[in-house]
Amino acid sequence: MAGVLTRQADDFPQWYQDVLNKAELADNGPARGTMVIRPYGYGIWERMQADLDRRIKRAGAQNAYFPVLIPLSYLQREAEHVEKFSPELAVVTHGGGEQLAEPLAVRPTSETVINVFMAKWIHSYRDLPLLLNQWANVVRWELRPRAFLRTAEFLWQEGHTAHATREDARAYALRVATEVYRDFMREVLAIPVFLGRKTRRERFGGATNSISCEAVMRDGKALQMGTSHELGQRFAQAFDVAFQDADGIRQFAWTTSWGVSTRMVGGLIMAHGDDGGLRLPPAVAPVQVVLMAVTADGGAAAALDGVGAGLEAAGVRIHRDARVDLSYGRRVVDWELKGVPVRVVVGPRELAAGQCSVTRRDTGAAEKVPLGEAVARCQALLAAIQRDMLVAATAERDARVVDAATVPEALSAAETGLARIPWSAVGEAGETELNAHGATVRCLQAADGSVPASEDEAGVVALVARAY
Amino acid sequence: MAGVLTRQADDFPQWYQDVLNKAELADNGPARGTMVIRPYGYGIWERMQADLDRRIKRAGAQNAYFPVLIPLSYLQREAEHVEKFSPELAVVTHGGGEQLAEPLAVRPTSETVINVFMAKWIHSYRDLPLLLNQWANVVRWELRPRAFLRTAEFLWQEGHTAHATREDARAYALRVATEVYRDFMREVLAIPVFLGRKTRRERFGGATNSISCEAVMRDGKALQMGTSHELGQRFAQAFDVAFQDADGIRQFAWTTSWGVSTRMVGGLIMAHGDDGGLRLPPAVAPVQVVLMAVTADGGAAAALDGVGAGLEAAGVRIHRDARVDLSYGRRVVDWELKGVPVRVVVGPRELAAGQCSVTRRDTGAAEKVPLGEAVARCQALLAAIQRDMLVAATAERDARVVDAATVPEALSAAETGLARIPWSAVGEAGETELNAHGATVRCLQAADGSVPASEDEAGVVALVARAY
Repeated sequence: MAGVLTRQADDFPQWYQDVLNKAELADNGPARGTMVIRPYGYGIWERMQADLDRRIKRAGAQNAYFPVLIPLSYLQREAEHVEKFSPELAVVTHGGGEQLAEPLAVRPTSETVINVFMAKWIHSYRDLPLLLNQWANVVRWELRPRAFLRTAEFLWQEGHTAHATREDARAYALRVATEVYRDFMREVLAIPVFLGRKTRRERFGGATNSISCEAVMRDGKALQMGTSHELGQRFAQAFDVAFQDADGIRQFAWTTSWGVSTRMVGGLIMAHGDDGGLRLPPAVAPVQVVLMAVTADGGAAAALDGVGAGLEAAGVRIHRDARVDLSYGRRVVDWELKGVPVRVVVGPRELAAGQCSVTRRDTGAAEKVPLGEAVARCQALLAAIQRDMLVAATAERDARVVDAATVPEALSAAETGLARIPWSAVGEAGETELNAHGATVRCLQAADGSVPASEDEAGVVALVARAY
Repeated sequence: MAGVLTRQADDFPQWYQDVLNKAELADNGPARGTMVIRPYGYGIWERMQADLDRRIKRAGAQNAYFPVLIPLSYLQREAEHVEKFSPELAVVTHGGGEQLAEPLAVRPTSETVINVFMAKWIHSYRDLPLLLNQWANVVRWELRPRAFLRTAEFLWQEGHTAHATREDARAYALRVATEVYRDFMREVLAIPVFLGRKTRRERFGGATNSISCEAVMRDGKALQMGTSHELGQRFAQAFDVAFQDADGIRQFAWTTSWGVSTRMVGGLIMAHGDDGGLRLPPAVAPVQVVLMAVTADGGAAAALDGVGAGLEAAGVRIHRDARVDLSYGRRVVDWELKGVPVRVVVGPRELAAGQCSVTRRDTGAAEKVPLGEAVARCQALLAAIQRDMLVAATAERDARVVDAATVPEALSAAETGLARIPWSAVGEAGETELNAHGATVRCLQAADGSVPASEDEAGVVALVARAY
């Protein structure tokens, strides 16, 4: 495997770039900071989307679609929101060959335009909660773009909901952060996340509370994998999203917004990948089992055809690698790079014994399996890999978490991982100090690991790390 | 039903607008010509997408994603292409607070950017065919926008493929037009389409051949529902998409592109809708069966719960309308407006007889069904409605097709439908004459209804109509 990829220990960012190229996940787009998602990378995203979409619908939200072009004046209606997003806007000034009377922003996020329509659609408390979601592209001018992690254009879902009470909005924002996002990341991506509250400084522009899912990558840096925001009545007031309550009194709605993006593909690469390349959890792997013969051989091909047909009938996503003109070693390196969870190989020796060789990508463990048992064994292995990858990622992550008592201790811990430090030992001044040294408070947790209702609660702990 | 909608016969465009509003399908967006797709409208589009996506993958194409922002210079590389699309561009001139060195177009279509990457990815004949598809939004400045039919932003899929030979490219473009588009429109949308070749004048900018799917709406106007283009080697030459053939000789690839969009939602409304509102084929109906009691009554509710549970278990998409505070008549009008294929109602009389009343939206036919047989009956009806809607739409369409021998005859037929006229009786001069009177050649067909390889073939027939 030497030479195919830069080693993680030598240069993690270069390893990441190598994986993007060699596993054919993404290319840089022509306009600065944009990216092309190649079929293999998009195949991973599609599977993330399909699973998330089911969870979002289970949480009661309906999909809709709002325009990509938003009048600049809409963005200016909520003061904090415009302050945060103005520097990142791409602006359309010409349309149909003429200069526009009012410039249009390519959406950086859709709170503003969606609130305009919520105001139009909501009349009475009977119309609430209004639970909307959209799958869309957004554009934010990025100073330091990196494929999937930080790109000028990315794909995401953005949920936007309106509720009759603060309590209902708060409960829904938390429900999305837990039942939709955290559970998806654990069960599908096999990535454990810390759920917590963002500090005032790190909040979404216009939010009264941002709940964040924070994961730890294999270089010890944190990655924000998704956020769910309580927006209070700020946007409702700015856009006049009001309703008549049961007593006939006009009230402003309480709104939330929440999103996850193609950034999760970057997280998946960096949370699981090793020096051989990607390691994909079976749930999102475009190919779950690759079948290949060591050499061109009719018998091996026939044996693999049988196993492949059985796997397909069982609903397993397979790929038959028929490139016997390529060296066996080169093909193995290819599929390791692409992170295919299980490899089934038949060579002359296996064939003679009526067996195949079955290899797990996550651990590298190989075993000989009678051909007649290969389908069942592959299925069992896929389930085991999905489970074991979460266990392994959790153990690795936890080994990188260090308790700290002071800001300098936290900074030191953030060199290699994540520090847990009492928020009372940090505060706004400590946060400034951390930021000056390249670390941030990723989120705040209650002592029991839950999301605190306020940063002033007793016992609140700050999770500190360098981050993407 | 009087007064809920404008009648089709009185003012078809106003009827269309009324349906959009009252069935909560779409709203106008804030920027000129943009649209908001509301959850009910988006639910229809999602089901179209899911089915099409399966067909596209079955035809061998893989999904990918290319940037929404395209340097203007890319669009200028193919002369006909830029001539067609320049007047329709939305142009980003500012990003991140600064004026851009090169303005970026918001993609009107992605041939240009995708060909740049095809050139990068394709080296040898072994890399061909390269079959790509993307689901995306595109922006084209429209002078006369109308929701779904012609909007400044729309959602679509655009397929882009590269082949080693003209024959292979031609066969693939035709395969998409037939196996993917025509079959989808017939089997899922229950809309029959004429498949034909566009005249030179009506071709896609940069294509050597455009194959079109043309449907006839209930006002007699035609709607182009989808197109599949042979691009020859034009884009390959402009973007240097070349490969080494088996003999080691460098050749330009032959490319195709093909797309269908949210415009099909407009087609669905206008091909099937009646004075009561939408009529949705079960395959794309967000709700296939609506269940409602005539009045608040525990017994009726329990009976409907049982039927609903059975339908859900059978995989039928149902909605339980519990709004017994609303008059029964009002609720019936609501669900007719929304075009739900089957309505199951339990009133006091039905309850006493252990029955429910089952009504088809497409024909209005109602029947009493024993509660115990309601699930099976609904399933059978859904299958029958899907089938019968295509039969009815085909008969209606065919009744609007008239044979014509001269251009004036064709123009007269185009007042109420579609004219079939020998292409030799039209020609470029006749086409100009038709255009001057608001009609167009929708497509050219061979005598047997197949797609001719050239417009100069003997016996070619032109289909002429007014069109959206």
